Amino acid sequence: MRMVDIIEKKRDGLELTKEEIQFVIEGYTNGDIPEYQMSALAMAIFFKDMSTAERAELTMSMVKSGDQIDLSAVEGIKVDKHSTGGVGDKTTIALAPLVAALGVPVAKMSGRGLGHTGGTIDKLEAIPGFSVEIETDKFIELVNKNKLAVVGQTGNLTPADKKLYGLRDVTATVNSIPLIASSIMSKKIASGADAIVLDVKTGSGAFMKELDQSKELAKAMVEIGNSLGRNTMAIISDMNQPLGLTVGNALEVKEAIDMLRGEGPEDLRELCLTLGSQMVYLANQASSVQEARQKLEEVISSGKALETLKTFIEAQNGDPSIVDDPEKLPKAKHLIEVKAKESGSVSAIVADKIGTAAMLLGAGRATKESEIDLAVGLVLNKKIGDKVEAGDSIVTLHSNNEDVQNVIDMVLNAYSITSENVEKPTLIYDEIH
Amino acid sequence: MRMVDIIEKKRDGLELTKEEIQFVIEGYTNGDIPEYQMSALAMAIFFKDMSTAERAELTMSMVKSGDQIDLSAVEGIKVDKHSTGGVGDKTTIALAPLVAALGVPVAKMSGRGLGHTGGTIDKLEAIPGFSVEIETDKFIELVNKNKLAVVGQTGNLTPADKKLYGLRDVTATVNSIPLIASSIMSKKIASGADAIVLDVKTGSGAFMKELDQSKELAKAMVEIGNSLGRNTMAIISDMNQPLGLTVGNALEVKEAIDMLRGEGPEDLRELCLTLGSQMVYLANQASSVQEARQKLEEVISSGKALETLKTFIEAQNGDPSIVDDPEKLPKAKHLIEVKAKESGSVSAIVADKIGTAAMLLGAGRATKESEIDLAVGLVLNKKIGDKVEAGDSIVTLHSNNEDVQNVIDMVLNAYSITSENVEKPTLIYDEIH
Repeated sequence: MRMVDIIEKKRDGLELTKEEIQFVIEGYTNGDIPEYQMSALAMAIFFKDMSTAERAELTMSMVKSGDQIDLSAVEGIKVDKHSTGGVGDKTTIALAPLVAALGVPVAKMSGRGLGHTGGTIDKLEAIPGFSVEIETDKFIELVNKNKLAVVGQTGNLTPADKKLYGLRDVTATVNSIPLIASSIMSKKIASGADAIVLDVKTGSGAFMKELDQSKELAKAMVEIGNSLGRNTMAIISDMNQPLGLTVGNALEVKEAIDMLRGEGPEDLRELCLTLGSQMVYLANQASSVQEARQKLEEVISSGKALETLKTFIEAQNGDPSIVDDPEKLPKAKHLIEVKAKESGSVSAIVADKIGTAAMLLGAGRATKESEIDLAVGLVLNKKIGDKVEAGDSIVTLHSNNEDVQNVIDMVLNAYSITSENVEKPTLIYDEIH
Repeated sequence: MRMVDIIEKKRDGLELTKEEIQFVIEGYTNGDIPEYQMSALAMAIFFKDMSTAERAELTMSMVKSGDQIDLSAVEGIKVDKHSTGGVGDKTTIALAPLVAALGVPVAKMSGRGLGHTGGTIDKLEAIPGFSVEIETDKFIELVNKNKLAVVGQTGNLTPADKKLYGLRDVTATVNSIPLIASSIMSKKIASGADAIVLDVKTGSGAFMKELDQSKELAKAMVEIGNSLGRNTMAIISDMNQPLGLTVGNALEVKEAIDMLRGEGPEDLRELCLTLGSQMVYLANQASSVQEARQKLEEVISSGKALETLKTFIEAQNGDPSIVDDPEKLPKAKHLIEVKAKESGSVSAIVADKIGTAAMLLGAGRATKESEIDLAVGLVLNKKIGDKVEAGDSIVTLHSNNEDVQNVIDMVLNAYSITSENVEKPTLIYDEIH
């Protein structure tokens, strides 16, 4: 088998065989196939796409390129949730204890944030004492005991995907549905998921700006998952503005706790219930999605979800008293109001700019080496559709620095205010099975 | 300027600017742009093509990537001829003295053969004593004195093209009209041509098998040449069978001499007169192509073309007496007849297989390091359209080895014989200006 023939075959729009895809991924991972052949193939895939069978095989070959997490010792159906990324997305922190409270085992491997999006581990580390550095045995023991544990990324998962992603980034081949879908799905499958609920974001703050594209990506991932024997579904949710009201690590933890207490912003609650009911249903803990939702609402109102959160925090060396007293979370020194310059209705909040504003305050990493400040961030006092008067505070900055003019400018720049009435955007656009 | 943005621009079908193309070729030549970005761009060009302006700029950037031959000291308009390659193509050896006899300066830089196609220098070296190793000053002096000299490839011409061709070869991006056309034209322009006559082959034995493709390539090269100020035209000629009757170095030299004497096969004579009259016309040595053709026929019948050949051979240390006595050329020990197994008309002669048969006899190089045997080769006794009886010799092998069953099999395999009448194929399909 020769790589040049495989490139030519894909270039000419033909379907690659299982053996050819395995040959490519194995050879690329071990260095036998050079970067220049892989980039030519990636560009040919960009133009000629891949069939469902090819996408599934590519995903599985990338899974096999490295370690796979063995969760067979965890009892029950392991349902993983994945979000394609957004600003203010603290869903995991609320969702994990919420579904665990219903007996769904959550064995979560998470990452840190980079650029304008935050990472779940960074957020959890805002809880004093909390640690994600636990051994695999202990991790599995905790999941079996409490139905919930979170660990930092460990092992050499999907090295082919890491290498290929780096190459795609510099060869203008990132934006290819089969390559994006197989990249995401390979990581989920290597992490040991039995079933997968995908939260595919759409809108100005999402990787996929157009609804059609987002649906196409969701459909691609659902097809891959199902053809590899992982029960998979996707929700298409809005990212035309940040999710909830807070951006920043401790602030987002507090908002997630509020949600579990039955308080907090409506969009966060609705997204958690939508994703959560799918997870509970796929984990066989309810006979319908409707029943699953009802059960989730019950564990919120009964306080069981909050109790599960406390147990989880305590088990990973965190201080569970922050759940009842969120004032114990790290707090910034200064609260600075960003005031509207005109009156009207908020018509747009560019999520990327809000994320960048939070990063400038110190809540996110500009580079992999940056230290982050867990206390800082911002709270949105106005969201799309809200009325504002000139001089009203639209955003409160939580800062450890008084010199924040660049952040204020960035926030003002992110907001658009119009004289017309604006409707609140749809939160859930579609679900894909 | 960033290469990834340039790849993305071409991927999205936009036209690259002059500055962007220069940036790519300069950076690729000096190693600042890695192979994996160049191969992604080549694949994007394969799918999205290039405009005439982009092709011209790519050609000129490759010319500027290395040395350029300065032929300004040669008097007159230097017209170069280029063939896209075929089997039995001894045109240059006949054509060069033919047009030189009319005062057209021929300062020819030629290469050696590889694989199933021969090289002009190998053929000339079949003449005892002949040398292409001459210094540039001497080369120019000879062209001014005799109107004809041939030198081996010298200097670091178009290194960007060499590097890019090597990359295209392993990334399935060879077969792209803008990349093929700019590759060929960059070499011609770097070699100092003022005007260019292209012989674009078409048919089963050519790189371009389909007439439409061949015309498209010819049109691409003519447009590049003309937009860079080099008067350029192309002839589309047949390569559904080898040109003339001989394949092999000494055998082809003899056939070229026959042609200049007014003898030899009709297709070789017709192609030489067609290409030659265009060269004479572009060199301003005739007021029309028709007049040029008439003058060429005159220098053949007057013997002036043969005299020019003798002078040329003598000036490069060759033995000019071979012109009058071609028996002095290297001769193979054995003549072996390949006999038809059935009666009928020849309907096809796969040129590649005939070229490979000659290579197996030792006439060509399997690898760059192979030694070649100048004496061996084959003579086609039957061409497409000819009647044969079972047992007739269709090909005579000139071999230094008696064990040639594999060559006989290859030749028999190259020929198709049908019971129906077959017309002789067209030789000249079109001309492109």
